[in-house]
Amino acid sequence: MMNVSQVKTLAILGVGLIGASFAKALRETFPHIKQIGLARKPDQLNDAVKLGVIDEVRAIVPESLHDVDILLLAVPVSQTESVLNVLLPGIHTQLVITDAGSTKQDVILAARGVLGDKIRQFVPAHPIAGRELSGWQASLADLYQGKHVVLTPLAENDAKYVALVRELWQGCGANVSELSASEHDAIFALTSHFPHLLAFAFMQQIAQAPNTSQLLHYAGSGFRDFTRIAGGDATMWCDILLANREALLNALSALQVELNSWHDFLSNPAADGEATLKKIQALSELRRSWQPV
Amino acid sequence: MMNVSQVKTLAILGVGLIGASFAKALRETFPHIKQIGLARKPDQLNDAVKLGVIDEVRAIVPESLHDVDILLLAVPVSQTESVLNVLLPGIHTQLVITDAGSTKQDVILAARGVLGDKIRQFVPAHPIAGRELSGWQASLADLYQGKHVVLTPLAENDAKYVALVRELWQGCGANVSELSASEHDAIFALTSHFPHLLAFAFMQQIAQAPNTSQLLHYAGSGFRDFTRIAGGDATMWCDILLANREALLNALSALQVELNSWHDFLSNPAADGEATLKKIQALSELRRSWQPV
Repeated sequence: MMNVSQVKTLAILGVGLIGASFAKALRETFPHIKQIGLARKPDQLNDAVKLGVIDEVRAIVPESLHDVDILLLAVPVSQTESVLNVLLPGIHTQLVITDAGSTKQDVILAARGVLGDKIRQFVPAHPIAGRELSGWQASLADLYQGKHVVLTPLAENDAKYVALVRELWQGCGANVSELSASEHDAIFALTSHFPHLLAFAFMQQIAQAPNTSQLLHYAGSGFRDFTRIAGGDATMWCDILLANREALLNALSALQVELNSWHDFLSNPAADGEATLKKIQALSELRRSWQPV
Repeated sequence: MMNVSQVKTLAILGVGLIGASFAKALRETFPHIKQIGLARKPDQLNDAVKLGVIDEVRAIVPESLHDVDILLLAVPVSQTESVLNVLLPGIHTQLVITDAGSTKQDVILAARGVLGDKIRQFVPAHPIAGRELSGWQASLADLYQGKHVVLTPLAENDAKYVALVRELWQGCGANVSELSASEHDAIFALTSHFPHLLAFAFMQQIAQAPNTSQLLHYAGSGFRDFTRIAGGDATMWCDILLANREALLNALSALQVELNSWHDFLSNPAADGEATLKKIQALSELRRSWQPV
């Protein structure tokens, strides 16, 4: 199997927001592909089949992969090892495997441990898109439209496997680029995972205050946007934060320097008021000059 | 002068986003009120007069207040003392003064120092609304619609002055409530000022990274919302953070406890993985159950 026009069957393990949005987008672009959901409790996806999100549901067993060309893992990153272990006997030599995990080094480590030589069939990927809602009911055909998808190909990957995964994500409307897994993890530690950690830490301050409900009563649009990501799925984010913990510990140290500098400034504003104002002006301009994709 | 129907002339010192949005909202609700902009460089407001945002521009001199019933100060909080000093000889006994500052204890201290017995004419207020854009060109007639406005009345205030300021803000569509100045400052330190400080500190990490442009290239919607408030007006926010620095130093200490706990968790996840997951689940639910006004 060489290119997407030859793909007959795609299996998605984890038909949640990410997996089902992928299915909906591909349904529009590549309607010839049969889409199969793999689930621990197949009955829970009956409605997703009725509504045409996927064509069929199967159990998470090796036999379910017999006619599958591409397998997308869209499960919490910590489950990569266990699901691959279960499916291993069914992973035939023609199967291309990819994933949608927010961290890459740990996923690759887990996959390599299970797959051995078959690691050449695994093309790691990370779509940069999401919503606070979860589950296939929250899925959107245009979730990936104009968004980044980062591939972190392995030395072992056949170039045509990488090209195929790229073609699928482009079919979802995404801008696909490539990074090494370590580059990827360092970048997203700082731009995505660390803000989640900070939003959780800040919400904990609010939760522990003696007047939480009064604080929430007067909270405005700044609070709304700053804490939006603290409403994300707790299990998924615990997973991601742990999977990328080295980089997050570095980010915590770097933040500490900034917080110490704020502490000094607030304790003794006369000492460097002008310098602080200039610093904030530069940050404010940097932020305003940035445009999200 | 007892109620809003008897108000003939309103002066706004600082015809920026906040002042001009107040003018536009009142124009719709109370069209009988003549609106005067006070400005250091009156020429810069000629267009605001042409477009009907205000009716007239005057210099910041005592004589400008001779026929004014209500004066709104909409300047950075650190300028309260100096502008009141300049205007003092013109502050006649019938003038009601109010403000729109994001901190209240420091504004009241400054006003009390200048006004002496006339402090009874000063009704402190804080509208909880804003945009990242600034200047009267960014003003909106509905900026305050459905938003909170907090009054922090003084013991010296005549009840009818407080009622009048309340009526004006209600005329802008706001939900008006009352707090003591110290309650106000503690609440907004945590829900508004501290998130700004954190967003600035985080943006500084991004700015200081060796790969800032790469980081910004891959930054997604989480980053967008988390850092939106870092794009705010630097002078205004430096001012606010300094004006409320005691409360912010407390918030920094409280955050430190949370960050230390994250540091411990990431360093040794096995120690309290379950407890951390439960904590994040509770925070995530708290955030999702909150609805902004």
